[in-house]
Amino acid sequence: AKNYKIAVLAGDGIGPEVMCEALRVLEALSLRYGFGVTLSEQYVGGAGIDHAGKALPDETLRACEAADAILFGSVGGPKWENLPPNEQPERGALLPLRKHFGLYANLRPGICLPALTHASPVKNELIEGGFDILCVRELTGGLYFGQPRYRKEIDGEDTAVDTLVYRKSEIERIARVAFEAARGRRNLLTSVDKANVLTSSILWRETILEVAKDYPEVEVRHMYVDNAAMQLVRNPQQFDVLVTENLFGDILSDEMAMICGSLGMLPSASLCQGSKDNGLFFGMYEPSGGSAPDIAGKGIANPIAQILSLGMLLRYSLGETAAANDIDRAVRRVIDLGYRTGDLATGAPNEIRVNTAAMGDAIIAAL
Amino acid sequence: AKNYKIAVLAGDGIGPEVMCEALRVLEALSLRYGFGVTLSEQYVGGAGIDHAGKALPDETLRACEAADAILFGSVGGPKWENLPPNEQPERGALLPLRKHFGLYANLRPGICLPALTHASPVKNELIEGGFDILCVRELTGGLYFGQPRYRKEIDGEDTAVDTLVYRKSEIERIARVAFEAARGRRNLLTSVDKANVLTSSILWRETILEVAKDYPEVEVRHMYVDNAAMQLVRNPQQFDVLVTENLFGDILSDEMAMICGSLGMLPSASLCQGSKDNGLFFGMYEPSGGSAPDIAGKGIANPIAQILSLGMLLRYSLGETAAANDIDRAVRRVIDLGYRTGDLATGAPNEIRVNTAAMGDAIIAAL
Ligand SMILES: CC(C)[C@H](C(=O)O)[C@@H](O)C(=O)O
Ligand SMILES: CC(C)[C@H](C(=O)O)[C@@H](O)C(=O)O
Repeated sequence: AKNYKIAVLAGDGIGPEVMCEALRVLEALSLRYGFGVTLSEQYVGGAGIDHAGKALPDETLRACEAADAILFGSVGGPKWENLPPNEQPERGALLPLRKHFGLYANLRPGICLPALTHASPVKNELIEGGFDILCVRELTGGLYFGQPRYRKEIDGEDTAVDTLVYRKSEIERIARVAFEAARGRRNLLTSVDKANVLTSSILWRETILEVAKDYPEVEVRHMYVDNAAMQLVRNPQQFDVLVTENLFGDILSDEMAMICGSLGMLPSASLCQGSKDNGLFFGMYEPSGGSAPDIAGKGIANPIAQILSLGMLLRYSLGETAAANDIDRAVRRVIDLGYRTGDLATGAPNEIRVNTAAMGDAIIAAL
Repeated sequence: AKNYKIAVLAGDGIGPEVMCEALRVLEALSLRYGFGVTLSEQYVGGAGIDHAGKALPDETLRACEAADAILFGSVGGPKWENLPPNEQPERGALLPLRKHFGLYANLRPGICLPALTHASPVKNELIEGGFDILCVRELTGGLYFGQPRYRKEIDGEDTAVDTLVYRKSEIERIARVAFEAARGRRNLLTSVDKANVLTSSILWRETILEVAKDYPEVEVRHMYVDNAAMQLVRNPQQFDVLVTENLFGDILSDEMAMICGSLGMLPSASLCQGSKDNGLFFGMYEPSGGSAPDIAGKGIANPIAQILSLGMLLRYSLGETAAANDIDRAVRRVIDLGYRTGDLATGAPNEIRVNTAAMGDAIIAAL
């Protein structure tokens, strides 16, 4: 029987609480589908700093290297906010993990279910019936890692420089991920750039158009990033798959997440090609929301984002498609049945108010 | 008596129509306050391309040089959309004007009046009572003009590079504009950066903190750009003045404008220090919205953004504060009285539906 190794990095804040529910779901699915799982639970983020002196301890990194995939919780909190940016839990854990494993493809579904449009900050009439966007963000190029980056005195003045670099092959591989995704969805790809200003965006646009030739069934639209920031608010339903470079993706995917209205429901995947030639990815899977220190330890956080992240892990890294589909279906089911954690509740009479564990129970029951 | 020279660049689409109303308002105010005005009307954008072969004709540029300020309409339209990005009306007119005059400070008020929250895409309960943000965008630095920028074969691969550079003095001068503005408002400045990733953002943040020492009455908050993109949607009322670098400002100011819900009401100013030592700026003033080719020529566009842009011109470039205040008051008045162009109308019984000219009439009557 198959046996998968998963590195489990629960992190800080609500991370451990929601992770606990995801692991219960994983157990249920491993019984149902007969695959084995070996977990390696490790410190990361603030917990890494407290236990091993840094946000990404060496032992944690080694466990990730030995794993088939990484299930990540969330990191950060007020305790570590005054450290230098480089050492803080979020930056200090996420950027090194992305760089070390070359996790170039960040997939963030932005789904607003029809039953939850009230939770979106956008007026109901603009999003009736909900929406379903997939944001594909390039994650290892651009300004994040471009060289040179320095600070020095130039003409007697303190000057700082960052570099936005893209090689064609970097754009090509993320484009392929996005086109493949669009092909399995509504066949519409919106590529976001700033080709009226940036040289790198001109290369981006050209490369998207080249790759598009291999996907004649997918309609491609180009949109400037400033316009995209507007269109997301005004009419999110116009998007199917959205693909963009690293920093634009950082901004737009967070804006999109906020517009969905339920950060506690949004998973994400950060992927690179797997070592075996089987179409699977190695990757790290984590909720889009943060560690929510204000509600940590109370057992009331919404575990759905963590459970859906597990679903993406099963799909993209393990190829356990049936199990992944079970999760997606079960989550929709419990929402339809009216189960609501505090972040989603409105007080409507047909709602069933639940805490973290009870939401976990409901999802396991619905699997 | 004083006589001001104003370069009038109406441009394309609805530009000429809304400009016409602004010039009528200007005439009324020049009579009331006894200043003279000499207008130099020039082609720009698509009109520049059609009449003189480029988006910013030499004659237009010379007229701007000879003027005390530039009143700009809007540029662009489907006719010129297939030109190379560099030659298109928007980019081909705006970037050279900014660069030529060193217009480093872009001021964009994002006001949602209490009577118009229904027009915002954000749920009414999140913006009850409206909101009033001033976005201060650095406009001549960063990725827009940074060197080197090139495209070349590196290791056999097509590669594109843009450079994000900031000198300390560039950050300092835009910070001062922002702090001065905050001091005249609610004394709260939110500085947006990506200091957890970018070297230039670390210099940005340090410089903001240094300049802050000269403005002890102003509270300073720092926010990462991804978070700012979320907070603008969730809770725009938390912002007073927002200051940020060029590209972040491009994205966030457009997102903010969309959230206001009435693009046709939002003016902007792009400023540099004036030549005389009188605290006034040289600048270019234009509506935040576009040329709206779909409604051009019908006489139904909202002229308020253009008229408020004139108000900013009177305030910042001419020092005609009383006249500028008259405009701001008159606009609020006509909105309170129920005057609505098509973009603002809801069909409520107390609304007075007007076209472009009638809105101009109403504002002149309310002056
Ligand atoms: C923590 C930070 C470096 C990171 C990023 O900017 O990529 C975060 O905002 C994210 O989007 O995962
Ligand atoms: C047309 C374009 C170059 C310009 C910019 O990016 O600055 C526009 O989007 C703006 O914000 O004025």
